[in-house]
Amino acid sequence: MTQTTNLLEKIPGTLSEEFFETQVETKAVRIERIISKGHSSPKKGWYDQDRNEWVLVLKGAARLGLEDGSEVYMGPGDSLEIPAHVKHKVLWTTPDEETIWLCVHYD
Amino acid sequence: MTQTTNLLEKIPGTLSEEFFETQVETKAVRIERIISKGHSSPKKGWYDQDRNEWVLVLKGAARLGLEDGSEVYMGPGDSLEIPAHVKHKVLWTTPDEETIWLCVHYD
Repeated sequence: MTQTTNLLEKIPGTLSEEFFETQVETKAVRIERIISKGHSSPKKGWYDQDRNEWVLVLKGAARLGLEDGSEVYMGPGDSLEIPAHVKHKVLWTTPDEETIWLCVHYD
Repeated sequence: MTQTTNLLEKIPGTLSEEFFETQVETKAVRIERIISKGHSSPKKGWYDQDRNEWVLVLKGAARLGLEDGSEVYMGPGDSLEIPAHVKHKVLWTTPDEETIWLCVHYD
């Protein structure tokens, strides 16, 4: 357990799709790293999740869209709580550098 | 819920003690920001927690000590899983800049 994992390193060389990596998983919680590079959600798709989610941008930037039409810009250090079943999508992430997200999914 | 919170900003002007701030709390999980500046645990004290903890250094650096005598250095982006009841302490944090931690306590 004395082994640290650096979330800003070990970035895949190609990112044709978003990269998902679970850091911790128990019944109650899943902590996940996501790396995007210019990715966004499919135009018609929404994330509609059974669990609450808390997201934090570690690096890069993104714009999220919510079902009510509002948009949220997130840069480094910005965090956002997304309650279960609040539909959301990623509208934009920085195309020229990776956006590294930390996501905590929890009951 | 479209209000973001930036974890790198709103740093208290004086940090005579470590600063703790809960971001999210449910039965299963607590997400917390901690800001240290040269703080370390009391010499005789250990953290002995009933819950698992996952820590991430967002800014600054720290050295953790574990009951088995091992030490762990953590810089920006470094994360560490600390299972429940693994006794640990903070040996050192950067004295000249704030160390900002993200901690997830979970069942």
